[in-house]
Amino acid sequence: MPTAPSARRPADPLDLLQLYRRVRADTARLAAPLSDADATVQSMPDASPAKWHLAHTTWFFETMVAVPNSPRYRLFDDRYGFLFNSYYETVGARQPRPLRGMLTRPTLEEVAAYRSHVDSAVETLLESGPSAEVLDLVELGCHHEQQHQELLLTDILHLFAQNPLRPAYRPAEPADATQEAAAEPARFHTFGGGIVEIGHGGDGFAFDCEGPRHRTLIEPYALADRLVTNGEWIAFLQDGGYRDPLLWLSEGWAKVQADGWRAPLYWEERDGEYWTMTLRGMQPVDRKAPVVHVSYFEADAFAHWAGARLPGEAEWEHAATSPAGRGLRQLSGDAWQWTRSAFAPYPRFAPSPGAVGEYNGKFMCGQFVLRGGSCATPDGHSRASYRNFFPPSARWQFSGLRLARDA
Amino acid sequence: MPTAPSARRPADPLDLLQLYRRVRADTARLAAPLSDADATVQSMPDASPAKWHLAHTTWFFETMVAVPNSPRYRLFDDRYGFLFNSYYETVGARQPRPLRGMLTRPTLEEVAAYRSHVDSAVETLLESGPSAEVLDLVELGCHHEQQHQELLLTDILHLFAQNPLRPAYRPAEPADATQEAAAEPARFHTFGGGIVEIGHGGDGFAFDCEGPRHRTLIEPYALADRLVTNGEWIAFLQDGGYRDPLLWLSEGWAKVQADGWRAPLYWEERDGEYWTMTLRGMQPVDRKAPVVHVSYFEADAFAHWAGARLPGEAEWEHAATSPAGRGLRQLSGDAWQWTRSAFAPYPRFAPSPGAVGEYNGKFMCGQFVLRGGSCATPDGHSRASYRNFFPPSARWQFSGLRLARDA
Amino acid sequence: MPTAPSARRPADPLDLLQLYRRVRADTARLAAPLSDADATVQSMPDASPAKWHLAHTTWFFETMVAVPNSPRYRLFDDRYGFLFNSYYETVGARQPRPLRGMLTRPTLEEVAAYRSHVDSAVETLLESGPSAEVLDLVELGCHHEQQHQELLLTDILHLFAQNPLRPAYRPAEPADATQEAAAEPARFHTFGGGIVEIGHGGDGFAFDCEGPRHRTLIEPYALADRLVTNGEWIAFLQDGGYRDPLLWLSEGWAKVQADGWRAPLYWEERDGEYWTMTLRGMQPVDRKAPVVHVSYFEADAFAHWAGARLPGEAEWEHAATSPAGRGLRQLSGDAWQWTRSAFAPYPRFAPSPGAVGEYNGKFMCGQFVLRGGSCATPDGHSRASYRNFFPPSARWQFSGLRLARDA
Amino acid sequence: MPTAPSARRPADPLDLLQLYRRVRADTARLAAPLSDADATVQSMPDASPAKWHLAHTTWFFETMVAVPNSPRYRLFDDRYGFLFNSYYETVGARQPRPLRGMLTRPTLEEVAAYRSHVDSAVETLLESGPSAEVLDLVELGCHHEQQHQELLLTDILHLFAQNPLRPAYRPAEPADATQEAAAEPARFHTFGGGIVEIGHGGDGFAFDCEGPRHRTLIEPYALADRLVTNGEWIAFLQDGGYRDPLLWLSEGWAKVQADGWRAPLYWEERDGEYWTMTLRGMQPVDRKAPVVHVSYFEADAFAHWAGARLPGEAEWEHAATSPAGRGLRQLSGDAWQWTRSAFAPYPRFAPSPGAVGEYNGKFMCGQFVLRGGSCATPDGHSRASYRNFFPPSARWQFSGLRLARDA
Repeated sequence: MPTAPSARRPADPLDLLQLYRRVRADTARLAAPLSDADATVQSMPDASPAKWHLAHTTWFFETMVAVPNSPRYRLFDDRYGFLFNSYYETVGARQPRPLRGMLTRPTLEEVAAYRSHVDSAVETLLESGPSAEVLDLVELGCHHEQQHQELLLTDILHLFAQNPLRPAYRPAEPADATQEAAAEPARFHTFGGGIVEIGHGGDGFAFDCEGPRHRTLIEPYALADRLVTNGEWIAFLQDGGYRDPLLWLSEGWAKVQADGWRAPLYWEERDGEYWTMTLRGMQPVDRKAPVVHVSYFEADAFAHWAGARLPGEAEWEHAATSPAGRGLRQLSGDAWQWTRSAFAPYPRFAPSPGAVGEYNGKFMCGQFVLRGGSCATPDGHSRASYRNFFPPSARWQFSGLRLARDA
Repeated sequence: MPTAPSARRPADPLDLLQLYRRVRADTARLAAPLSDADATVQSMPDASPAKWHLAHTTWFFETMVAVPNSPRYRLFDDRYGFLFNSYYETVGARQPRPLRGMLTRPTLEEVAAYRSHVDSAVETLLESGPSAEVLDLVELGCHHEQQHQELLLTDILHLFAQNPLRPAYRPAEPADATQEAAAEPARFHTFGGGIVEIGHGGDGFAFDCEGPRHRTLIEPYALADRLVTNGEWIAFLQDGGYRDPLLWLSEGWAKVQADGWRAPLYWEERDGEYWTMTLRGMQPVDRKAPVVHVSYFEADAFAHWAGARLPGEAEWEHAATSPAGRGLRQLSGDAWQWTRSAFAPYPRFAPSPGAVGEYNGKFMCGQFVLRGGSCATPDGHSRASYRNFFPPSARWQFSGLRLARDA
Repeated sequence: MPTAPSARRPADPLDLLQLYRRVRADTARLAAPLSDADATVQSMPDASPAKWHLAHTTWFFETMVAVPNSPRYRLFDDRYGFLFNSYYETVGARQPRPLRGMLTRPTLEEVAAYRSHVDSAVETLLESGPSAEVLDLVELGCHHEQQHQELLLTDILHLFAQNPLRPAYRPAEPADATQEAAAEPARFHTFGGGIVEIGHGGDGFAFDCEGPRHRTLIEPYALADRLVTNGEWIAFLQDGGYRDPLLWLSEGWAKVQADGWRAPLYWEERDGEYWTMTLRGMQPVDRKAPVVHVSYFEADAFAHWAGARLPGEAEWEHAATSPAGRGLRQLSGDAWQWTRSAFAPYPRFAPSPGAVGEYNGKFMCGQFVLRGGSCATPDGHSRASYRNFFPPSARWQFSGLRLARDA
Repeated sequence: MPTAPSARRPADPLDLLQLYRRVRADTARLAAPLSDADATVQSMPDASPAKWHLAHTTWFFETMVAVPNSPRYRLFDDRYGFLFNSYYETVGARQPRPLRGMLTRPTLEEVAAYRSHVDSAVETLLESGPSAEVLDLVELGCHHEQQHQELLLTDILHLFAQNPLRPAYRPAEPADATQEAAAEPARFHTFGGGIVEIGHGGDGFAFDCEGPRHRTLIEPYALADRLVTNGEWIAFLQDGGYRDPLLWLSEGWAKVQADGWRAPLYWEERDGEYWTMTLRGMQPVDRKAPVVHVSYFEADAFAHWAGARLPGEAEWEHAATSPAGRGLRQLSGDAWQWTRSAFAPYPRFAPSPGAVGEYNGKFMCGQFVLRGGSCATPDGHSRASYRNFFPPSARWQFSGLRLARDA
């Protein structure tokens, strides 16, 4: 949600129409390889069915944009509000989250019709010269839908990983010859510390939790120029990383023992080689690639083992935006990067009024911030001030890490 | 499974071929109204997806019949053994029961192809003059598949009942005018007791647990000539039946409190009227019709409230087969009827050798016997000696009750 | 509770006074080795603190005998009714069973004072020439208290077994030299079957579920002349008994896997020898002694492994009371003996009116009958018609087995 | 644990001996009103038995001080290491936390003997002129024991609150006449913000997580001059505070619904008046007194309702140490004060080497910082830099709140 909608230059309606169409088409394209059954099943309470993502993002536009602003808008189906509200208490009751997978009806086809119905209304509205407030809400809806595009991918991967047939979402590519090669050693870049500014402050779109832009004080520090690789992770686990309680946070160690963690989520050992479930089906683990599907607990334990620590989110953002950070690779597009910052309000943060105020603020407890962006993040969705967040035990996102040190 | 395959007259191969074709076609017909998504989702651990029923019954024929008896049989997919074994420890590992709903693949279409593939093999075998043992196994497989036909219906009803849209499996029929009318009062027929014979003993097919036929001693008793109706159930619940612990078994009362039972499963009160979810969608409760979807605990509490008791299974079977039982209505085709008999082996019962020996014997603990047959039971599947069984808390079957008394 | 109080010869008041005093003194003696802390802690929901047993048995006399029959009786503490009611819904609300161990107050000393207070009232009543109904209730209370004497021992053993110090309730005795010797092979005695009478029918006391005495039909069968020994159990487990699913009931096998059962409860392997926790602390397993602390599931699996089965309760009772049963040893005083009979009402059973009617009938679901009596059963408490019952997974009682076969 | 033991002026051995004796005697005095049973029972996994606190604090001195530094020290009982280790993975295996209440043995008397045995060794060591490292460890042990003194009180209160008799730990005092009076309205004191120093930096003792002292940047803010009162809390709940999801963090609202929170822990409504369980038994809620036994979730919701927020820990510490904070009352001695700061390492924090390094660092996840000190905190234990921490759902501590605002 825009930090301060009234203060920002409003988005251009035609640009926004283009953005809207592109985002909506992207979502449809992402769902195209899925059968109705694939799009319906919920593999765990934290994940949602693809069909639910398709419908919920549409419900957002219907409820926040079409209904309040298009007097002649007719609801596609008045029961969908209950089915596809996610967590907006302001808006009303809803299908309990762990039961989203019970909705074999509406069908995927009916959901596509729902999408078209709402698209017509939103597009007509955008073409009619709407208020700045409407523009802000459509823009928010587009970025909201992009978030669900990523979740659609991580959730379908989780579902397919539960299937002993290990189906592929995308066709597999020819195996890469690099599996045994090692990545270049990471190099640490040093940053000076002091009072820095972080947080979103410009004209472009940002979610409310990215602001207000504010000053903060950081100590000198160093950041690795690349992400931790699968090869390094294999060294960690072969060194007993998952067996030494002293490397772990207390709650993390309890999780290791209770859930039998021995490697990143989706890894399997076959005849001494590590394989992993991917959107292209089971693939050998690529030692040069950044490790993904690790929890905060694992990332933190790895950092201890490596004699380093996770970066703070201010350190990460400062590095990503300062000239000295030019040498840092893989800032975005590979893996979300765990920081050691709990997800908390910035100074003078206030949630937006209305239903969209429930977007971020009420989750500021028990979660850690991830920075950057992953291979599943839509192009142009993330930015240096972007604050993704998940509980420390979450593993099904494309989450990895970059090491930091005091300097 | 036949009580004593070698002693029985073997089934005629051509009759069996006809039975096989009919049963297999019936299953396909039952699944026809379902989308791939409908057929994939598992609504609770006790229920299975329709697709799983379609594939598991096929796996039974493939594993028990085709593989051991058709030397040139080629497995349709060597991974299906893992996916579609239910609980046969003899046969090997299997997809955990609560995760049957993760299998969005194979698709419904692929499962149909699997069915055809196995059908060809079984039909060829039946046409080739197979051994009596093969005939027995095919016959068992047909009756096994009929059991799954009923489960397919009860499981899809459970799934659709979880959906706030309350979809109908079958088209609704015009509402019946009889809702407010009362059924005729039940009349009790008296039976003399003494030494009686029960259990399957004839030439036809029966499951192993229905035999051996044996003598047992029963005391004089009386049975109601019809099942308990919805109208009577409404009287029970309006009289506080669900609020008086003294009517209930201790474990049943715990369940009432923990799960908030206030009426049969699927009932909803709307403006003072009771409605219930059915295969035809939400329907007003028909006061004249037999109550269904009640647990053993509820049936037993109702019987206490009515100053009666549930019948023993020997009483039920004796009444159903004796001339004095001619006046009993609704013996089969309306609802499975809870008896107060724990599911236990008959004297000198021995499970069959081999994998099919796991069919019934290993479930003889913690379950109660139901007799008769329901509206969802395939024609010709049940018989007077038939022993259905479920845990006392199960409610999603078409289970009702007939009252009994000491005479 | 007496089967038919009015029909039985009433107990003699002076005999009953003597019984009352003996039983009450026995309970106090059993609790003597326990500290206030030992007597307070609850080690699992199925077990109760010794202090609770001491107070609950007293509450039974206070509530069922003193209050309704002694007009001048003053409650010792009007809050004890809530604290020490077990499960009598007729009587009122109560401390939830899993929270019985929260009651550090009243102290053990206060509970002793409560016992004395109620003893005075009951003894005065018995000396005053009470009605037959009162005599029946006092007699019931004595037998009820004897049941809790056994539970007090099994529950304290369970508590001490949770303590890594493995404290002994009684002083250990010098180790026996017989550990390695084998017991005599069991011999099977054959019984003819036919119509037999079982159930309590005489003048003496019995619980309501032991009657009515009635005829039943049994087939010829054979019973082992002694219980299964620890030595035989070791052979079973060393033969892989706990690893072969085909020996087990389905629910039993699930329990083996979920709870990691590998031997009877309390057994530990130390350097290749089996030790077990007992009321005398950790002791080597005596191979000649009857196995105890096995569940119904284990007993049933063992019987399968041994090519035998568990007896039905009618078989057991018939053998124990027929002249042909004279050669059977260990009928009582060693271990409760699992039968394959579900705990169910005898023909024409009706619970007693009033609160004591909740004694047995409401537990007739999900439990199996055990016959005989154990080393922890008070002298004179059990009899041939006695029906003990526990769920099939219960292991903390002194429960063993005697093999049976069809003859 | 000292931030930098070698850099600090070592404690004087004689002062430390005095501190040691005082702390140890205080613990014994706190346990004096408890019976062996009171001291043994564990009322929930988060709480520990008093006996365990008595023994664990002793085990700390035995393991960290006596064993490594007194060559002739003989373990009191070599099994106590297993029983009374809390969570030190470095030191070895231990009794699982939820089973601490199974330890009816050793008795309270034996634990007292254990305390004496270790006291002799530690006192002898202190009198012998020990190294600075030993002095640091003894000092740490004293502060560690003080933490357990407070837990002993909160845990015994929790235990007594589970008992329907609601026993009093201390004698009740005559009822106060002030219940209906309102407290003075809170006034907000404004602080200027800027770069401030926080964290422990002086010579005295502090736990490792209180340092290093460091600079941080804060914005102008205001703090209430007193804690939120019970009277204000009653206004909040009567205004529907526990029923409005928009006031709550998402996870907090889930807790409200799942656990039925309607008031602070221990509150009961009786005839329209609020009562609460205290160490003096049930008492009327004093409207002028600070509210206690509220979770972070409740504190945060209250602050939203009041149009305020919780302070950050740097704001709290700055206010408590700056001249402008002189007007703030109830900084310590009434209730721990929730801050909105997640418990996280200060810049350049490094845990101490060795077992004591497990003291704080491994809990830096999922917890919020509380500042100040409560009525149960030992005199002299807390200080302005003190960081207490608990999960956001914890309610059994004496936890309250002070409101803050942006200025």
